[in-house]
Amino acid sequence: MSEENTLKFGMVGGAEGSFMGRVHRIAAGFHDDLKLVSGCFSRSYEKTLETGEKLDIPEDRLYNDFEEMARQEAGEIDFVSIVLPNYAHYEAANPFVDRGINVFCEKPLTFTVDQAEDLMQRVRETEIVFAVNYSYSGYPMVKQARQLVRKGKLGDIIMVRAEYPQEWILTSLQEDSEGISSWRIDPEVAGISNCTGDIGSHIENTVSYITGLEIEALCANLESKSGASELDDNSEIMLKYDNGASGMYWSSQVAVGHDNGLKVRVYGTEGSLVWRQEEPNYLEVTYTDRPKQRLSRGRDPLFPAADAVSRLPAGHPEGYFESFANMYHNLKQAVLAHRDGNYEEDEFDLPTIEEGITGVKFIHKCVESSKQGVKWVDFE
Amino acid sequence: MSEENTLKFGMVGGAEGSFMGRVHRIAAGFHDDLKLVSGCFSRSYEKTLETGEKLDIPEDRLYNDFEEMARQEAGEIDFVSIVLPNYAHYEAANPFVDRGINVFCEKPLTFTVDQAEDLMQRVRETEIVFAVNYSYSGYPMVKQARQLVRKGKLGDIIMVRAEYPQEWILTSLQEDSEGISSWRIDPEVAGISNCTGDIGSHIENTVSYITGLEIEALCANLESKSGASELDDNSEIMLKYDNGASGMYWSSQVAVGHDNGLKVRVYGTEGSLVWRQEEPNYLEVTYTDRPKQRLSRGRDPLFPAADAVSRLPAGHPEGYFESFANMYHNLKQAVLAHRDGNYEEDEFDLPTIEEGITGVKFIHKCVESSKQGVKWVDFE
Amino acid sequence: MSEENTLKFGMVGGAEGSFMGRVHRIAAGFHDDLKLVSGCFSRSYEKTLETGEKLDIPEDRLYNDFEEMARQEAGEIDFVSIVLPNYAHYEAANPFVDRGINVFCEKPLTFTVDQAEDLMQRVRETEIVFAVNYSYSGYPMVKQARQLVRKGKLGDIIMVRAEYPQEWILTSLQEDSEGISSWRIDPEVAGISNCTGDIGSHIENTVSYITGLEIEALCANLESKSGASELDDNSEIMLKYDNGASGMYWSSQVAVGHDNGLKVRVYGTEGSLVWRQEEPNYLEVTYTDRPKQRLSRGRDPLFPAADAVSRLPAGHPEGYFESFANMYHNLKQAVLAHRDGNYEEDEFDLPTIEEGITGVKFIHKCVESSKQGVKWVDFE
Amino acid sequence: MSEENTLKFGMVGGAEGSFMGRVHRIAAGFHDDLKLVSGCFSRSYEKTLETGEKLDIPEDRLYNDFEEMARQEAGEIDFVSIVLPNYAHYEAANPFVDRGINVFCEKPLTFTVDQAEDLMQRVRETEIVFAVNYSYSGYPMVKQARQLVRKGKLGDIIMVRAEYPQEWILTSLQEDSEGISSWRIDPEVAGISNCTGDIGSHIENTVSYITGLEIEALCANLESKSGASELDDNSEIMLKYDNGASGMYWSSQVAVGHDNGLKVRVYGTEGSLVWRQEEPNYLEVTYTDRPKQRLSRGRDPLFPAADAVSRLPAGHPEGYFESFANMYHNLKQAVLAHRDGNYEEDEFDLPTIEEGITGVKFIHKCVESSKQGVKWVDFE
Repeated sequence: MSEENTLKFGMVGGAEGSFMGRVHRIAAGFHDDLKLVSGCFSRSYEKTLETGEKLDIPEDRLYNDFEEMARQEAGEIDFVSIVLPNYAHYEAANPFVDRGINVFCEKPLTFTVDQAEDLMQRVRETEIVFAVNYSYSGYPMVKQARQLVRKGKLGDIIMVRAEYPQEWILTSLQEDSEGISSWRIDPEVAGISNCTGDIGSHIENTVSYITGLEIEALCANLESKSGASELDDNSEIMLKYDNGASGMYWSSQVAVGHDNGLKVRVYGTEGSLVWRQEEPNYLEVTYTDRPKQRLSRGRDPLFPAADAVSRLPAGHPEGYFESFANMYHNLKQAVLAHRDGNYEEDEFDLPTIEEGITGVKFIHKCVESSKQGVKWVDFE
Repeated sequence: MSEENTLKFGMVGGAEGSFMGRVHRIAAGFHDDLKLVSGCFSRSYEKTLETGEKLDIPEDRLYNDFEEMARQEAGEIDFVSIVLPNYAHYEAANPFVDRGINVFCEKPLTFTVDQAEDLMQRVRETEIVFAVNYSYSGYPMVKQARQLVRKGKLGDIIMVRAEYPQEWILTSLQEDSEGISSWRIDPEVAGISNCTGDIGSHIENTVSYITGLEIEALCANLESKSGASELDDNSEIMLKYDNGASGMYWSSQVAVGHDNGLKVRVYGTEGSLVWRQEEPNYLEVTYTDRPKQRLSRGRDPLFPAADAVSRLPAGHPEGYFESFANMYHNLKQAVLAHRDGNYEEDEFDLPTIEEGITGVKFIHKCVESSKQGVKWVDFE
Repeated sequence: MSEENTLKFGMVGGAEGSFMGRVHRIAAGFHDDLKLVSGCFSRSYEKTLETGEKLDIPEDRLYNDFEEMARQEAGEIDFVSIVLPNYAHYEAANPFVDRGINVFCEKPLTFTVDQAEDLMQRVRETEIVFAVNYSYSGYPMVKQARQLVRKGKLGDIIMVRAEYPQEWILTSLQEDSEGISSWRIDPEVAGISNCTGDIGSHIENTVSYITGLEIEALCANLESKSGASELDDNSEIMLKYDNGASGMYWSSQVAVGHDNGLKVRVYGTEGSLVWRQEEPNYLEVTYTDRPKQRLSRGRDPLFPAADAVSRLPAGHPEGYFESFANMYHNLKQAVLAHRDGNYEEDEFDLPTIEEGITGVKFIHKCVESSKQGVKWVDFE
Repeated sequence: MSEENTLKFGMVGGAEGSFMGRVHRIAAGFHDDLKLVSGCFSRSYEKTLETGEKLDIPEDRLYNDFEEMARQEAGEIDFVSIVLPNYAHYEAANPFVDRGINVFCEKPLTFTVDQAEDLMQRVRETEIVFAVNYSYSGYPMVKQARQLVRKGKLGDIIMVRAEYPQEWILTSLQEDSEGISSWRIDPEVAGISNCTGDIGSHIENTVSYITGLEIEALCANLESKSGASELDDNSEIMLKYDNGASGMYWSSQVAVGHDNGLKVRVYGTEGSLVWRQEEPNYLEVTYTDRPKQRLSRGRDPLFPAADAVSRLPAGHPEGYFESFANMYHNLKQAVLAHRDGNYEEDEFDLPTIEEGITGVKFIHKCVESSKQGVKWVDFE
């Protein structure tokens, strides 16, 4: 394992040409003290070798399967990043968890709630760091929003409005009338949901991260409006939270005019906030007794959790890569503490495996509600 | 009755000090050829006399009750404007309708659906012009939106997202802990709903005006989040339209940070549009195959129905008063045609009594759905 | 003359079909207690009669020339509105001023500085109310800006950036290759400047109104970039104010993409503000020690001068007509005080004849600077 | 030297703790095929060793002075990045240029025009790649703007309006009344100008990059409004370009309310564009005959030069780091071509040493104009 403050990690999935693989490597590359030293980048060993060569990773640290990698790398790497399509997360995470290797896993955590709970049980046994990459929680202004809500600055939370509209399925269909070839709309790879699983799950986690509210019941309308596949491409949800607040979520891949429009609005009795993913360096906050404010990252005083991951001066835009880099930043702290035997999950600002389970459950509950005719279902 | 192109009208309600009375008078005042000549401005005859004096209306055209006014003014005025709180619309409209006097009535039309249908039946018999003042349909860019949708420019409509958040109940409570003294939250005056009736109804009509979609079923969550009265101050609704499209509506009076945030988004298979009441001179339109556009009233070519009610050059903001003035503008055309015996309701761009009925039914269906535990109810 | 609080006024210019005439009449019509009772609406008596008939003004109050009108209406009207092209202001104002009739005059005040000073001398002798219609000072948020600056909330003012871009000359030329038929580009009617006189003058007055700064020197580049006429259609100016602050002004009629883009930014040592004419209900204010704020008319507490002319609740947009109506509102107060013998010019919030002179001088100094090869010229 | 497509480079300046050093390393780290292999990171050898250790650079590739580094690394590295304060650029670049090592140099190029021209002469002799890091030209939408203008889409360019306001000097002074300790305001390190040299120079280059216009004359007002140092903190400039177009530039470090407000507006006879550095993924374009458009990186079709450096899907914000990464991306292409003997400077999209010279001259001309009493000076 690494010495001093430099951490070594491996990667599963994310071969040359994979979008997510590149994002993870660039994000880790923001940190001089994170080194990618091994990988099983693809089911094709040839592709793994090619990728490894590009990345200057010696061949003896390149693996043909997850199992072997976990076996060989136990004690050698500080953590592994799992950058695979949804269906493979569980399978890939298992061997690393079982060998006590810390895991950073893409979301959604698993296909089924059972898998997720099984995974958690073993994570609890091996006492590793296991974080799920809900990357939007990496943005400084999302962290600022969380602190504002958690410290009661907005009063009691009475409502959440959140949406994540995209348009890509409609524009893709227009460009290619033969249909779309994306794993996201293939049930074998994506699971029981496309839109809700892919982006609705980001709404769920971002809202939960900011507000701490727990869903009590929901009523979801999942549809394939484009007909591009049997999976949903649009998802409309009403919710009830444990404190009596109400929610409305909308995610879509058929909403013309939206690029990647994640937007979260939280309303309290004394104030409200709005965060827009496409303008991530700002947070709009309004209190009942003051004019509307626009907080600017780098300019206005932020809470320490937000400030810690703000790299650039005000007005120098940070974006998507930085949000991922921030996930690695916080992961690093957790893994270092773990190495020193001081790791307490709730002291770190990272999405936990429990949040991962909630995320999987959320998808399943939405599908269940919709299948029952858009009826209210309890969340448990 | 008036000669040539000048029209004479009376007003019921709207005494000095009434917000809506002033708005109506200013709006009518945009037209040199509309003259307010008589009125029953208040239940207090004294107040009516005071208001009449201010407005240079001779005492013999000022009335103590609606009945008398209708009797005396039949054949003298071209139409009457009814500017009263919700509960009095039916009572006030009746005598004018029965005497064949054209009516311009504030919304919502009546308290009950029965009243509304009864009214319509008599309107059909006397064949008068009866328009309901859904004033947001008076904005040129709302008319432009309607034409874009109706002419199929956005393809098939698959979704509507509309919201109308305000914050006034929370800020009022904060300023005066004794509670709010507004007729809007008093069931005797406002009826079975506050928020849904007052502003949710504007969503319903504006969406219907733009899209022509008919609601097939809805599922509504009406709450009094502030506890300021038993009536709803927040309203969350999922909808299904007759063409299979889905909707989400939100109206609120407890959403800190929003002044008067009516916003309507319509999504089709080939394009989408957004109209924001607080920036009414613009319309955002995106087609799948072109960059996002911002249409500017006065600059960009508009359809005739929108162009006809655009008064100022580009960049000179028109606002709320102009939207009302536009209602009077279109009303004038209809009443002139009626005088000439050429009135066909569907040839005029005015909210009809049928739309008024739909509006009342909408409020009732929302209350019904919410009372049943936020269940889906058919709209009929 | 009028009794009680109702004021009677006459109008010079503004016949049916004139844009400005209509705007003035609608603006006055916001006030129940302002009555248009006489007019000389056009050089064509026939047109004056037609307009008068439309407006229900009896024939004996309709005049063939200014002189006769002033003679007959002295003692009958409380003020006269002069709504003519630039060249005729001086000629038209004279007879009214000499007979002690209060005057509300369109801007720019006169063609020459000599005319303006001559007019002022006589205004001072007859002690009338003479206001110049710099209408952008009528917006509540411009008044709020003025108060913020004048009360020192921004610290010492160190800079002003102001611009007023339009595009109409380029788009008009494109539509009609034969050239533009607008009096604005005709030296006989518009005077020595088109762009600077028409809209640059609004920058000058709005900045002066808000900041109270006096121009010490300026360096101006006036060009006819379109070649549509010999008069300027673009105007770039650097300025030095009496307190050492510096300014940059830009006005244009050939700036594609701008409708009516008046925007004023004032920077002080402790804060800054931005007002945009196209979003007139908001004022952006930033202090060094707080997040950027957006003040909303109707929502946030305003200074009394601003509050007094805010008619509608927050989020209900007021626009161009209201700004004119507010000029009439303040004019009314001044004329009432004058009637009661209590008029002190500096107690009223109205653009004075001295501001009118400064405006004329500004245009002349800009032309002088530009003609000298874009050199600095002293303002006095 | 490197083999295949991987390039090795060294760095001068940019030790641990240096903001720019970190930005350069992260930016280079976006590319798997760029390896930092040597450095002279600081005047303090100790600091260089520390930084090198952190970065896993062996001690024998860490140098005590530039000269030695250039001597030893000739033939070993493909290029060197010079990441030093202004005053040291010339001194540091010399030995590398003389040994034929390609150079990537921070801006402004040198202190004096003579230095810059001397440097160019030697660059021309050794025929190396020498690029100056005007990083804002790295943004895809700036490249798109350049293509739109260069291909004549906006017609003839008639005006440029550009500004770069910041507020940091005022806010810093407020936080620490003892004064500011920044090398930027120290003439020994920054040279004859602070604001104009630091950020005015970005305006100059970005405008030139987009439009290709050459400055013919300028009139500049440079002031130290804060009094924090003798160097300018505010800079107002009027310009005349070679094609007859006119310009206005404003840069400031005392403009409260602005973070890093670089904004460039280019106006042509047929269209205009606006690019805002704080919303870098969008480009606003308006043509005379179409509604205003907002081009979105990743969504709308871009010219190849812009498309080549767009990494993320639409709506996933790219920011400041990516703009630097794009400079390295294009530098890489040029260096690879150079290695293959195919380098022609004008075939690559990189700021040349000639642009560097223009930048230095611009600063000097502004200072000269201002010192002469804000008079027009020819640019040559």
